Amino acid sequence: MKEEKKVTMDKILNLCKNRGFVFPGSDIYGGFANTWDFGPIGVELKNNVKRAWWKRFVQESKDTFGVDAAILMNPKVWEASGHVASFGDPKMDCKNCKQRFRADTLIENHSKGSVAAEAMTNEEMEKYIDENNIKCPHCGVKNWTQIRKFNPMFITSRGTLESDADKVYLRPETCQGEYVNFLNIQRSMRAKVPFAIAQIGKSFRNEITPGNFLFRTVEFEQMELQNFCTEETSMDIYSDYKAQALNFVTDLGLAPDHLRYHDHDKLAHYAKAACDIQYLFPIGWQELNGIHHRGIWDLSRHQEYSGKSMLYTDPVTNEKFLPNIIEYSIGADRLVLALLCEAYDEEVLDENDTRVVMHFLPAIAPFKVAVLPLQKKLSDKAREVYALLSKEFMTDYDEVGSIGKRYRREDEIGTPFCVTIDFDTMEDDTVTLRDRDTMQQIRLPISELVSYIQERIKF
Amino acid sequence: MKEEKKVTMDKILNLCKNRGFVFPGSDIYGGFANTWDFGPIGVELKNNVKRAWWKRFVQESKDTFGVDAAILMNPKVWEASGHVASFGDPKMDCKNCKQRFRADTLIENHSKGSVAAEAMTNEEMEKYIDENNIKCPHCGVKNWTQIRKFNPMFITSRGTLESDADKVYLRPETCQGEYVNFLNIQRSMRAKVPFAIAQIGKSFRNEITPGNFLFRTVEFEQMELQNFCTEETSMDIYSDYKAQALNFVTDLGLAPDHLRYHDHDKLAHYAKAACDIQYLFPIGWQELNGIHHRGIWDLSRHQEYSGKSMLYTDPVTNEKFLPNIIEYSIGADRLVLALLCEAYDEEVLDENDTRVVMHFLPAIAPFKVAVLPLQKKLSDKAREVYALLSKEFMTDYDEVGSIGKRYRREDEIGTPFCVTIDFDTMEDDTVTLRDRDTMQQIRLPISELVSYIQERIKF
Repeated sequence: MKEEKKVTMDKILNLCKNRGFVFPGSDIYGGFANTWDFGPIGVELKNNVKRAWWKRFVQESKDTFGVDAAILMNPKVWEASGHVASFGDPKMDCKNCKQRFRADTLIENHSKGSVAAEAMTNEEMEKYIDENNIKCPHCGVKNWTQIRKFNPMFITSRGTLESDADKVYLRPETCQGEYVNFLNIQRSMRAKVPFAIAQIGKSFRNEITPGNFLFRTVEFEQMELQNFCTEETSMDIYSDYKAQALNFVTDLGLAPDHLRYHDHDKLAHYAKAACDIQYLFPIGWQELNGIHHRGIWDLSRHQEYSGKSMLYTDPVTNEKFLPNIIEYSIGADRLVLALLCEAYDEEVLDENDTRVVMHFLPAIAPFKVAVLPLQKKLSDKAREVYALLSKEFMTDYDEVGSIGKRYRREDEIGTPFCVTIDFDTMEDDTVTLRDRDTMQQIRLPISELVSYIQERIKF
Repeated sequence: MKEEKKVTMDKILNLCKNRGFVFPGSDIYGGFANTWDFGPIGVELKNNVKRAWWKRFVQESKDTFGVDAAILMNPKVWEASGHVASFGDPKMDCKNCKQRFRADTLIENHSKGSVAAEAMTNEEMEKYIDENNIKCPHCGVKNWTQIRKFNPMFITSRGTLESDADKVYLRPETCQGEYVNFLNIQRSMRAKVPFAIAQIGKSFRNEITPGNFLFRTVEFEQMELQNFCTEETSMDIYSDYKAQALNFVTDLGLAPDHLRYHDHDKLAHYAKAACDIQYLFPIGWQELNGIHHRGIWDLSRHQEYSGKSMLYTDPVTNEKFLPNIIEYSIGADRLVLALLCEAYDEEVLDENDTRVVMHFLPAIAPFKVAVLPLQKKLSDKAREVYALLSKEFMTDYDEVGSIGKRYRREDEIGTPFCVTIDFDTMEDDTVTLRDRDTMQQIRLPISELVSYIQERIKF
């Protein structure tokens, strides 16, 4: 249980800063807008998570094709998608102190999560705030504007002449890259429906209230795929992704009792079904990823706005139709946060000794192994072993401090194996290999190290 | 030689569009600002190139640490870096037709590359354009404005209240992410000078004249590292990166006679040395990557603008100093373009038969292997083999058309190995493995396939 492990966001954040997982963005300038920089340990963790997702959903799936679309897209894309006209969060300003808030967040915080504000209309939210006398969290006064929509797309401009500068948006979601390339990919890969297009990439949202560390940030990385299918098969495919999405995060190490499905009651007008998977973060149950049945909405809109046919032709029946789309999407940063929370443990070894250990699945651990010479005079041999192992996987090297302290430092960053070089190594080319979780040690020939570790870090 | 292979940018571009390497960005909307989307084949190629760089320069280098910094940084970063005040290209407008051009490009095009405009002052460029009577390429009239600086940083704004909207830039280079994190990383990794920080990430420049496919784009991905060192060791480290940078691209498959060093005569006032490596693209010799000795410029500026000490303390002498910086930087998209050009070949097999083949180094080939059942009734067995291989590497699957046609399709996307499932496979669990470059075939047990391929795709 989370409570027993005493995981708090503060503990995770401190560990992240101290041990090179994550630093505040532009730190020396006092940070910036809740951006975060992944440090040497964090970048490996995040890259491993992205690779695991790509392996599972692209590499091992014959009918899923990758794409890496540009962040800057033709502005018409966002007209077609509806983002220009109607994307946004319900905002209210405090007339007294001029601070801005999200109305749904005010209600959820006031009701401690018991009221699902996302399902309420603006009028319902205004009524609730009025009746429950919700005051400005900043100045304590209750003097609200009406709710208005705030469009969180970042706007920039392209073009080098002031007169023809085009308005350009930073994409608020990656999936439009799949939609606009639907037929390019279908043709060049000779793909048959049902098939999927997958992408990992950055999106940007000028959030009113980013926060909770990596949970909600203005710049974030999505891992998502869009499956193009017939209407007949669409609900089966939707259910299949629900199952696959849950399998993926449990296979990565999230405990099943920290995960739950949350089917949506309220759907977008075009949607046929929608579901989140929630994770029990230290801040409570929150959305980790989503699976959405989007019908033919996206392709029909792009067909309308681009004037280009988006019809797929069935190779057997020659029937032409717009495929339905099932979307599966998960935030890489948010998943990294969940994995950090899940892996964190304070193990009481005895009265005076507690070790902090990150129990990452070895496949996603930042370093797979650390090479630790028992004494500095063993450094040459240790560097040989480092050279051998670092050809194969991320390998740490540490020759400073007692061996016990070095083990603990590796525990804190979740290194599954530590290899100690001692005087016997010089005699018989064997090393001690220590397991992070059990703290058991075994003796192994150097020649068997690579295959021993490789076998245990597979995903 | 390039000429013998008849590589042209058009041939590369057509292959890229037809075979799923790269599509124009926002294609159904007529494209957008020379952006490009990597398709299913291209995304694998690019990811393999990025992984190879990371493996060489981070994984196998004990004293290099990765980082993945946010694209949106505190605007003060760009004041400190000098980008707000003095970053930019020399632009001239045609007063007649209002088109904008880069003065240096006008001169270089007019002189067919024989005049190095980058080394000229604005006055020298204006004089040259006047004396050589260079006219507007768009309307043919000669009626130029003076040269002004055009700042190519994309500007957006953060903040949800109109009144406090902060100006924010899309980073025009990634390296500031290393500079601002210098001490965070030094401390958390307990790093000693000399050490390096490496990053792969996107940058954005509102280029006046993007073009030549992936060569110059408004959105591009950099792979770069910054080495922090003492002044005494700095020139040796600079020379070492010059050698390493060349080794890397030749190891990836670029021919040594298509590569050359280009030492800079004209240096920034703070720089001590600078060098490009150029590649012989179909458009001529062009910069592929750069190695720069930046002195203490970057850290001293950030120290000044942030008010935070950027001093490093030598652990032995306790001396405090600002390290020198050696930068090594290479564009991932540009390198992918070079690798596409280098790999492209039209092999005349006989009078009526020419095969197009991409001779990628197997380590960077998009698919490592293709599984091809000789007949559809062999599909079940072929899918078993696909399942086995796709656990290990990107594997294609194709059961449509004659085996000869399928081989040629794999040649065009550079798949190093094709595995054919035939009726003997059903008897003895062996397959035919065909080599892309030699077109030789051998017979192998299925059980040996993974290790056979794994051995040949190492980097």
